[in-house]
Amino acid sequence: MRRIACVGVAIVTLVGAVSYLASASGQSDGGDAPIFGNKIPPGYRDWKLVSVAHEEGTLNDLRAILGNDVAIKAYREGRPPFPDGTIIARLAWNFVASAENNNAFGRPQSFVAGLPKEGVQFMVKDTSKYASSGGWGFAEFNDGTPAADAALKGCSSCHDAARSRDFVFTRYAP
Amino acid sequence: MRRIACVGVAIVTLVGAVSYLASASGQSDGGDAPIFGNKIPPGYRDWKLVSVAHEEGTLNDLRAILGNDVAIKAYREGRPPFPDGTIIARLAWNFVASAENNNAFGRPQSFVAGLPKEGVQFMVKDTSKYASSGGWGFAEFNDGTPAADAALKGCSSCHDAARSRDFVFTRYAP
Repeated sequence: MRRIACVGVAIVTLVGAVSYLASASGQSDGGDAPIFGNKIPPGYRDWKLVSVAHEEGTLNDLRAILGNDVAIKAYREGRPPFPDGTIIARLAWNFVASAENNNAFGRPQSFVAGLPKEGVQFMVKDTSKYASSGGWGFAEFNDGTPAADAALKGCSSCHDAARSRDFVFTRYAP
Repeated sequence: MRRIACVGVAIVTLVGAVSYLASASGQSDGGDAPIFGNKIPPGYRDWKLVSVAHEEGTLNDLRAILGNDVAIKAYREGRPPFPDGTIIARLAWNFVASAENNNAFGRPQSFVAGLPKEGVQFMVKDTSKYASSGGWGFAEFNDGTPAADAALKGCSSCHDAARSRDFVFTRYAP
């Protein structure tokens, strides 16, 4: 489930992933926090929109991919590769039928974002720190608390499927 | 279809709607352009995310609702009513199954934003100019060209269903 949750999105790193990524790369983080430390990137909810998506099945969500300014600039310039400093965030909400909208439309067809799903995911580009995982580190926060390292072990391998686009699944929606 | 396209979203105004709204309110715009003139609001693609949604049926889209700073501030403060200067945008893209994501997930479940749908819609709050339509004007642009006034005539009446929330269907997704 964790692994699944990491796929098809822009996911990422910060502190939650450090020890995993550090050990995977053979490096020690020496207790230092990567980029943002043990805190969720400040202001991420204000970042610009990259794209939107819907996952069926057990995820059953509507999701938005947001990017910091470095990410958005790179997307709009048609990259990959993304430069160091890129951070991409994945937010998700419950997939909820809207009775109000359906009534206005006159038929059942409308689904909106319900309560936020647990786990805001990030992927951050730092080619030095995360050299062993394509330059990307991954992280997830639940109510601001970093997810356990074990929860993030599948992120990098899944994102390998998008290697040709610098390991980022999500394309920019113009 | 046009009327349907206006429902369940945050839609809006600018110039495309002026003559309609002006006549509806008994006012003349004297040829003046409202807020942004005959141009799509500059920089709207950079606005912050309000929420996301999916419409089935003939619309068959994934959509994002974005808001200018006035809109986002009002949403986060728990309003309505929205203050004058609020602009809310509705962007939509084709609802497309992602073979790449499905392969990564190991099952068919993933839908992403495809090509942009025609028509970026806006609703703008100006209690003086649009007094007769709850303070909101509506507009739609296709490749930057304002939609015909007739296409917007259903927007206001549909949004009346959300009168208790200042005529705005979309709730903020935290």
